[in-house]
Amino acid sequence: MCELGFYEERKVLEEGKVAPELVSETLYAWEGALSPHLAAEREGGAVGDSELIKKVERRLEEGLLEDGVERGRLDGFCVVETAGGVASPGASGTLQCDLYRPLRFPGVLVGDGRLGGISGTISAYESLKLRGYDVVAVVIEDHGLANEIPLMSYLRTRVPVFVLPPIPQDPSNDLMEWFDESCNVFNSLKDIMLEAYLERMRRLNEMPRRAGDVFWWPFTQHKLVPPSTVTVIDSRYGENFSVYKVQNKEYITQQFDACASWWTQGPDATLQTELARDMGYAAARFGHVMFPENVYEPALECAELLLDGVGKGWATRVYFSDNGSTAIEIALKMAFRKFSSDHGIFPELLKNNPADSCQELMVLALKGSYHGDTLGAMEAQAPSAYTGFLQQPWYTGRGLFLDPPTVFMHNGKWTLALPEVFHSGNLEPEDIIIQGAGGMHMVDPLFQRMLVNECRHSRIPVIFDEVFSGFWRLGVEAAAELLGCVPDIACFAKLMTGGIIPLAATLATDAVFNSFTGDSKLKALLHGHSYSAHAMGCTAAAKSIKWFKDPITNLNITSEKSRKILLRELWDAELVQQISLHPSVSRVVALGTLFALELQADGSDAGYASLYARSLVQMLREDGMYCRPLGNVIYVMCGPCTSPEICTRQLRKLYKKLEEFTEVKPDTKIN
Amino acid sequence: MCELGFYEERKVLEEGKVAPELVSETLYAWEGALSPHLAAEREGGAVGDSELIKKVERRLEEGLLEDGVERGRLDGFCVVETAGGVASPGASGTLQCDLYRPLRFPGVLVGDGRLGGISGTISAYESLKLRGYDVVAVVIEDHGLANEIPLMSYLRTRVPVFVLPPIPQDPSNDLMEWFDESCNVFNSLKDIMLEAYLERMRRLNEMPRRAGDVFWWPFTQHKLVPPSTVTVIDSRYGENFSVYKVQNKEYITQQFDACASWWTQGPDATLQTELARDMGYAAARFGHVMFPENVYEPALECAELLLDGVGKGWATRVYFSDNGSTAIEIALKMAFRKFSSDHGIFPELLKNNPADSCQELMVLALKGSYHGDTLGAMEAQAPSAYTGFLQQPWYTGRGLFLDPPTVFMHNGKWTLALPEVFHSGNLEPEDIIIQGAGGMHMVDPLFQRMLVNECRHSRIPVIFDEVFSGFWRLGVEAAAELLGCVPDIACFAKLMTGGIIPLAATLATDAVFNSFTGDSKLKALLHGHSYSAHAMGCTAAAKSIKWFKDPITNLNITSEKSRKILLRELWDAELVQQISLHPSVSRVVALGTLFALELQADGSDAGYASLYARSLVQMLREDGMYCRPLGNVIYVMCGPCTSPEICTRQLRKLYKKLEEFTEVKPDTKIN
Repeated sequence: MCELGFYEERKVLEEGKVAPELVSETLYAWEGALSPHLAAEREGGAVGDSELIKKVERRLEEGLLEDGVERGRLDGFCVVETAGGVASPGASGTLQCDLYRPLRFPGVLVGDGRLGGISGTISAYESLKLRGYDVVAVVIEDHGLANEIPLMSYLRTRVPVFVLPPIPQDPSNDLMEWFDESCNVFNSLKDIMLEAYLERMRRLNEMPRRAGDVFWWPFTQHKLVPPSTVTVIDSRYGENFSVYKVQNKEYITQQFDACASWWTQGPDATLQTELARDMGYAAARFGHVMFPENVYEPALECAELLLDGVGKGWATRVYFSDNGSTAIEIALKMAFRKFSSDHGIFPELLKNNPADSCQELMVLALKGSYHGDTLGAMEAQAPSAYTGFLQQPWYTGRGLFLDPPTVFMHNGKWTLALPEVFHSGNLEPEDIIIQGAGGMHMVDPLFQRMLVNECRHSRIPVIFDEVFSGFWRLGVEAAAELLGCVPDIACFAKLMTGGIIPLAATLATDAVFNSFTGDSKLKALLHGHSYSAHAMGCTAAAKSIKWFKDPITNLNITSEKSRKILLRELWDAELVQQISLHPSVSRVVALGTLFALELQADGSDAGYASLYARSLVQMLREDGMYCRPLGNVIYVMCGPCTSPEICTRQLRKLYKKLEEFTEVKPDTKIN
Repeated sequence: MCELGFYEERKVLEEGKVAPELVSETLYAWEGALSPHLAAEREGGAVGDSELIKKVERRLEEGLLEDGVERGRLDGFCVVETAGGVASPGASGTLQCDLYRPLRFPGVLVGDGRLGGISGTISAYESLKLRGYDVVAVVIEDHGLANEIPLMSYLRTRVPVFVLPPIPQDPSNDLMEWFDESCNVFNSLKDIMLEAYLERMRRLNEMPRRAGDVFWWPFTQHKLVPPSTVTVIDSRYGENFSVYKVQNKEYITQQFDACASWWTQGPDATLQTELARDMGYAAARFGHVMFPENVYEPALECAELLLDGVGKGWATRVYFSDNGSTAIEIALKMAFRKFSSDHGIFPELLKNNPADSCQELMVLALKGSYHGDTLGAMEAQAPSAYTGFLQQPWYTGRGLFLDPPTVFMHNGKWTLALPEVFHSGNLEPEDIIIQGAGGMHMVDPLFQRMLVNECRHSRIPVIFDEVFSGFWRLGVEAAAELLGCVPDIACFAKLMTGGIIPLAATLATDAVFNSFTGDSKLKALLHGHSYSAHAMGCTAAAKSIKWFKDPITNLNITSEKSRKILLRELWDAELVQQISLHPSVSRVVALGTLFALELQADGSDAGYASLYARSLVQMLREDGMYCRPLGNVIYVMCGPCTSPEICTRQLRKLYKKLEEFTEVKPDTKIN
């Protein structure tokens, strides 16, 4: 390994201008003309990925300062030159395109002007795009083959291609001449880089205002979101957002995605890279193709994995749709039919006019549960802020809604809370379905199991809504495992695709499926969305389902003595307890990938519309943790592969900020 | 250009086996050691892409025959060797990875064992994946750098890597020795290729049965779909499916996707390739990130393009969701609020208990229209086969449903049909919304405009459902252009992403948006799906919206004198008229990318549940056209970029099969 810190400094004079300064530094170098991973191995100079990234970042920060004083920003700019091809291994063995990805610098691709260079250049460009890089220019050496022409045609003028004159064979004599000849190209390159940088900054700067002008954000009172509070997300890498900020100067900083982007997120950086390539492949191989009466590999693989995983032991059929809400609507239609046919509600229905029937079917569901935003899914939930006339005048609440006992940690101890009025009585056959799981309240699993058994007794189909809980969110592949019983129908979405693309599935038993078979198409389940079982979604799901439960790819996977597969504990038990003891915290729940706490709050400070947690959320965001409050509840959610170390770091931050939050009086009444 | 048809034949004896035969043929060759596109240009031997593909296919078919007799299939196999890198231009200038894509042969990637070869091999592999190819093995020449180790690590044992001994510098003397040394590698390669082939065939063969066992297809009576009728889609490329068939032998054949995979499809082959790369990029750069109160480039670009395109002149806000049905549910919630606030229905609603209100709001909609499968969307449509108790017991039909006049071609003439009972009377303020567009019936545009004006008069918000009609489906970017009036709210989905990934948008005016602003979050629109405005969907939409309307990328784009942008006529007027004159055809509609015909049918042969068109559909599928019947309606749908020549080809096929269909009595009563 060469001596590090080798430092070269040269002044290059330009006519009529103040002498700019060229500072070049080799951060790492090895003796052997080998791939860095081999050279580092042989010469004993291994460098860890994060160490290298930190060093690059530090040097760039220092580069902007001279004797501690900030230079005029555009007087200078930095170029980081990598060694080898874009996908050559770095010193650790990680491919360089992966290694530098957290920085996601805009790139100039040095292509190849030789025979075969068109292909090599295009493929290198595609490897960069497949990792989310932006390439602002391509430059090649002229070898008389006009490689730039097919390159420009491929790039469709999106990216300029520059041609450098041939580099002399004997550089010692002629390089100055070559530099003279190449001067225009280098100047253009510099201009393009600066232009791209300025354009990018301009765009990032104006994005909050423009977003506020054209977006209509869901679940958002726009009046409470001035441009200054809008988060500009430049990219995500694994569990982190790269967020653009302006504070004295412009910069990009990392924030842990603690809301798991509405509970969808699962990929670590490695899985994200794999999924990106798979998404490209699926789009290229299939785009989207028609599903009914057809079969294609990703849909079949995904369905078989679902039945062998979350549906194992009970489900035999997979009905695909687009999101949790549609999966629930489908589940309801299945349950209605099954119940009707079990209870003889329409023995002769096909012969008569279906519109004649006016039997009222209702669901049996849990108060505080939430199953989606479309009307059918809403009808199956108890009245709430989301269901009033103001939101959906057609909502009536077609159910019997039970107030279930809940479990949580309070002052360091796990506690069971009984509802104020505990509903009792026999189930009527008109009350037809119970739905498991419920929001951020952890419903007593024994209660849930009891209810499921009761329904089974009365031949009432049971739907499990596993849209949130499915795929390791609660430490097991399906939350049904925690209840120790199985449903007739279950809904999955969110984490199913690893959190990269919308897809939902409603799983059902053979008995449910059979209540739709017959001689007429009219007896079939007439529900379907255009992108049902779309190839990209199924590809992502198949990959993620396998990835999450394989101990080789997910180091959190562990097995109990019972050979049941589980996630290891991700949240440090001591820290969890400590937080639950905090005076501003009323309840805590930690399970699987989820940690949630409820802030002590009364009256208008409590509940969904409360702005009570706002200042705490703001403090956390400033400390690199992107939280989103749910009223006076704060939650932190990681992916199934996130290391316990990362989780601990988040809890520590949270605890620290809780202390600060308690010290300052939160400005709950101001927007 | 070398003489073509140069033919080499050699017998290689193996011990104790019947002498296999090695037949090698060079299909195209050029003198110069240049990229084929340059050599072809200089030597005058340009070859068109489709000509080349046809020649390869023909030679492969011939290769399986000896003196016209079929050989034992596994006695021989064919290897097609390409020249240059995977992304080197072919003779026409098309990159070879694009050029050979319609064949989608499984590939052996010849990688690079030299310094820099890891990067080059990985990037080449990624370029192949980005075009939907399957690589069954990688082979490199040993240069003492152990490139296979990082390659295997990158490939995660999905693909084996073989290492060939170094090729001797002077091949004339030693090549036989090298072949001896390499024998094992070549044998393993051969085994892998055969194994991959057999495994693929086995899988393709059993897919229909397995699909029938695990899928629950939407809108499908499974009893009517025996495995023999299941279509195995191996891939899609532009407008065509590659379908696996067994008929005497196994083969893959092309079918034009005439149902546009449930009306979603837009991309030609070039756009599909571009979208595939963009999908990889978006997944790598963003995966999915949280939308509310945030902004990221693809969502912003997509929203701005929507407002500058389909929303131009009226819409100011974009609300993203996942599919047409959710877009409609959102639109309804918007309309309810706007109407309520305009008509003073809840002046004090926020102060009272929202559940108290029992004002009944209804929609005004068209009979025969269809707006989605979730309950809210269903409530806004007239009773039909989809809405009965059998399908959705909660459906009540909360609307006043008008029977509109329709237009179509009958016996060669455009005709206006009035409904049997024409509804008349004043609009009541409780009837609050009209929805445009309707299924395969083309509703008289003048009637629609009249209705819109009437609603505007009564301050009834107007929703246009452009889920199907949007983005050039009907020859204009938004069907509103055909009506000559604008809505308050409009829904888009399907073709919006080019047809590659689910995404929907509900656009609204400022006045609608403003009815949700206030000091409380409870007044905001509390509806949202986890993947709202997901980056991949928005990226695909932004690309497709631009691609479809740019005359450089879409050759069908034309401008009228009025400078209105339109698609040129895609369906040959004479052929359309000829079909409408056919005795088995009762009505024809041709508009934009849609051609539809209704077969003359009575009683149970007519309507949604009819199987009348089945035999015709079967005949068309056998002739390379994947149709899906809608009762006794047959339709052909192309993409906005599909050439009129391709459309004409489909209409000719259709006409030919109509003749055959009329000759044989259709088996309407058998499954």
